[in-house]
Amino acid sequence: MSALIQNTARGPIALLTDYGWQGAYAGVLKAVILSINPAAVIFDITHDIAAQAVESGAFVLAQVAPYLPAGSIVVAVVDPGVGTDRAAVAVRLPGTTFIGPDNGLASGLFDPALRPDGPKAEPVILPHDCQAFRLQNPAFFHNPVSATFHGRDIFAPVAAHLSLGQTLNALGPSTDRILAFPAWRAKRGPDGSISGRVLSVDHFGNLITDIQFADVAQAPANVQIQTTIGELRLNGIQRTFHDGSEFLVYPGSSGFLEIARRDASAAAVLESGIGDPVIVEFLNQ
Amino acid sequence: MSALIQNTARGPIALLTDYGWQGAYAGVLKAVILSINPAAVIFDITHDIAAQAVESGAFVLAQVAPYLPAGSIVVAVVDPGVGTDRAAVAVRLPGTTFIGPDNGLASGLFDPALRPDGPKAEPVILPHDCQAFRLQNPAFFHNPVSATFHGRDIFAPVAAHLSLGQTLNALGPSTDRILAFPAWRAKRGPDGSISGRVLSVDHFGNLITDIQFADVAQAPANVQIQTTIGELRLNGIQRTFHDGSEFLVYPGSSGFLEIARRDASAAAVLESGIGDPVIVEFLNQ
Amino acid sequence: MSALIQNTARGPIALLTDYGWQGAYAGVLKAVILSINPAAVIFDITHDIAAQAVESGAFVLAQVAPYLPAGSIVVAVVDPGVGTDRAAVAVRLPGTTFIGPDNGLASGLFDPALRPDGPKAEPVILPHDCQAFRLQNPAFFHNPVSATFHGRDIFAPVAAHLSLGQTLNALGPSTDRILAFPAWRAKRGPDGSISGRVLSVDHFGNLITDIQFADVAQAPANVQIQTTIGELRLNGIQRTFHDGSEFLVYPGSSGFLEIARRDASAAAVLESGIGDPVIVEFLNQ
Repeated sequence: MSALIQNTARGPIALLTDYGWQGAYAGVLKAVILSINPAAVIFDITHDIAAQAVESGAFVLAQVAPYLPAGSIVVAVVDPGVGTDRAAVAVRLPGTTFIGPDNGLASGLFDPALRPDGPKAEPVILPHDCQAFRLQNPAFFHNPVSATFHGRDIFAPVAAHLSLGQTLNALGPSTDRILAFPAWRAKRGPDGSISGRVLSVDHFGNLITDIQFADVAQAPANVQIQTTIGELRLNGIQRTFHDGSEFLVYPGSSGFLEIARRDASAAAVLESGIGDPVIVEFLNQ
Repeated sequence: MSALIQNTARGPIALLTDYGWQGAYAGVLKAVILSINPAAVIFDITHDIAAQAVESGAFVLAQVAPYLPAGSIVVAVVDPGVGTDRAAVAVRLPGTTFIGPDNGLASGLFDPALRPDGPKAEPVILPHDCQAFRLQNPAFFHNPVSATFHGRDIFAPVAAHLSLGQTLNALGPSTDRILAFPAWRAKRGPDGSISGRVLSVDHFGNLITDIQFADVAQAPANVQIQTTIGELRLNGIQRTFHDGSEFLVYPGSSGFLEIARRDASAAAVLESGIGDPVIVEFLNQ
Repeated sequence: MSALIQNTARGPIALLTDYGWQGAYAGVLKAVILSINPAAVIFDITHDIAAQAVESGAFVLAQVAPYLPAGSIVVAVVDPGVGTDRAAVAVRLPGTTFIGPDNGLASGLFDPALRPDGPKAEPVILPHDCQAFRLQNPAFFHNPVSATFHGRDIFAPVAAHLSLGQTLNALGPSTDRILAFPAWRAKRGPDGSISGRVLSVDHFGNLITDIQFADVAQAPANVQIQTTIGELRLNGIQRTFHDGSEFLVYPGSSGFLEIARRDASAAAVLESGIGDPVIVEFLNQ
C-alpha cells in the first residue's frame, strides 16, 4: 500500500443518486449511515440524476469534485446493473473516497488525462496515488443484501464504517483498475472546428456542453467564433448573462461552454437536451 | 409507565411531510428545531409525499422504519385535518418516537400484526412496549398556534424539546390507542389468487404493490405465477432489473412485489398509479 | 460600529437559492462551506425558488425569518445580475446575517416599516441596529471568481468564514443602504376595498396573497367580506381547510390571506398564479 495514501477518511459523507427526492430511498441512506455513525456529517449533492444516467451522474460529480472537503466520502448510486455481476468498489483518491458501482460513475473524480479515449466507459489503470477495493466483505453490509437496493445494503453502510475510521483493505480484494468514461473534451476536426454535444441541462434550462472554454479562448482577435446548435447560429462568446440579447454562449462555471437564453430556458425554447450536437467554428473575418 | 420504555430520545430528528421541496415550509421546520436545540441532528426522509395522502406517507415511513437510528424522533406531517379536532400525538415505540397527527400516519412504524383488519384507518390499542401522549401542553409549542401549520407550531417544537431530553409525560394526557391503517398485505381469495393494489410509485416509475413476496415465494416449481395489471399479463418473478425483457415483476427492497419496465417508467407506459388493482394467480402447468 | 451589534454569527447556515434540487449547484455550496468550516451546521430553506424570481425569494425568506435560530447566517442566491456591477453584501440584522446579492432579496428579513413605498425595489437606509458591508475582499473568496457562480465563489465561502467567527468589517467597505422591495401589504382604496395580488403558490396549490389578515379581521359583524379572484367570488373568511366547501379564503400561517380549494390545487383549477389580482370588498348586509 502506497505511503502516499491516507488510511482513513473522516470527512463528511456526500450523497449523489438517481433515487429522486420523493419516496423513502434517499432518507433510508441517511438513516443507515446515522445508525452506524451517529456523528456522521451527511450532505446531499443531489438525488435527481436522470434515472440510470450513469455518465450524467459522473459529470455532476465532476462539477462538485474540486470543492469536496478533505477526507470526504462520496456515496454515488446510479446503478442500472444492481444485482448483476457488476462490481461494487471503494476508490481512494487524494482527498476523497468514492463508494459505488464500478460502472464509470467515479470518472468525475479522476484527472481527465487518466481517462480512456474510446467512445464509452472502459477499464483504466489507477495512478499510484489512488487505490481501489472491491466491496465483498459482508461484515460491512446490511444483511441480507437485496438484489435491488445496494445503496441501502452495501454502499451506505460501507461509507459509514469508513467514516468511523475503518481502513479500506478489509472491504475486499484490491483492484488496480476501474471503469471510466472518456474525458469530456470535444475534439477538434481537420478544419479546426470543434464538434461537441450537450452533457447536462441545469434548472435554468442552460445547456452545458463538453466544449472546453480553454479550447476556444485562444482564437485570435480577427476570428469570429460561431456556435451552432440545431438551426441556431450564435456569434461570439459572452461573459455574463447580461451581455447577450436573446441567446448567448458563455464560459460556464466548470470551464465548459454553455448556451443560455436570457430570462427563459434555452432547453425549452430550442427543444434541446442531453446528447444534442453543438459545433464551434472559427471564421476568418 | 412501563419499565421497558426509554425515557428519552436523543437520536436524530427525521422529517417526513407533504410540504414539497419548494417554498418555506420544510425550511421552517428545521429553523424551529435548531432554535430550540442548536445541536439537533436533522435529516429529511422526504417532503414530497403526495398532498394529503396520509396512507402513502405511512407506507413511505414503513420503508424507512427498519433502518431508523436508535433514539430517533420522526416528525411526520401529512395532515388534511389540521386545525380540526383530530388529535396530535407523540408515540414512543421501541427505538423510535413518532410526532404528528393521529390520523394513521404512524402506522408505518407498527408491527403489522397490531394493525386493524378493516378497509380503513381505525383505532388500535397500543402494545405494552409503546406509549402515547396527546400534545396539549402549550409550554412546548410555538405560540400562538396557527390553524394551518402545526408542523411549525406544535410538531417541530415538541420534537426539539424531546431531543433535549424532555420526557413524554409532560406533553399532555396519555392515551392507550391511536389510529392505524390495516396492514399492507393483499389477501388470498378462495381460488388461491391474490388481489392487491399499487401502493406507491417511485422515481423510476416502478409500481410498488401491497402483495408480499413471501406470499408468492412458496409456490411449487410446477406452478406458473402470473401477475395481471390492467391488460398486461406477466409470467414469473425475476430477481433483478436485468432478468426481464420489457416488463418484469420482482421482489422489491421492502419485501413487496414491484412491477417495472426496463429502461423506462412502468407507471408512464401503463398509465398506472396508486390504487390500481394487481392480481397474482398460480396456474398449474 | 454600533455597540448594539454582535460581532460574530456562530449559528447555522441556511441556504435559499433558485439553483434547483437537480445538478451540482446546491451540493457545491455545501462542499465549499464544509471545506472551510467542517463543523458548520447547514440547512436548506429551499433551492426551488422560481428561476431569477428575486421578489418571490425575498417573500419565502420573510416566511422563515421569524423562526431563524439566533446567530444564523442566510446564504441567499437569486441573482439574475451575477457578473454585472450589482453589489454583493453581508447585512447583519439583530439575530441574523444575510449574505447575497444586493438586489432586494434581503427584504424578507427587514421590518416592513423600513421598506420603500414605490412599486419596485429601491435603496433604503439601514436602521441603527443593522450594518452592511460590500463583499470586496478576495481573501474570503474562492479564487478565481467566475462570472456566473458567485454562490460558490463568493457567498458560500464568506458565510463559512463568518461562521468561524470572522468579523464583518474585513469583508469590504461598509454601506448604509441596501435595496429593498416595498412591504407586502395590499393597499386600501377610497371605497374601503383592498386590491392585492398573488405573491406565491405553495406545493398544495394554495394561493398566498399580499393581503394581510389583520387588515380584514376588524370588519364589523354586519359586514360581508367578499374576495374576488378572476371570475370567482368567495364569501367570508374560514379558519381551517375543513370549514369551506369547495374554495375557501383563510388566514395563512404567515398572516396573509390565502385561497385554497379543498382536496385539490386552487392554482390548477383557477389557472391562477403569481401576480394575479385579488380584491377584498366589505359589503353591508
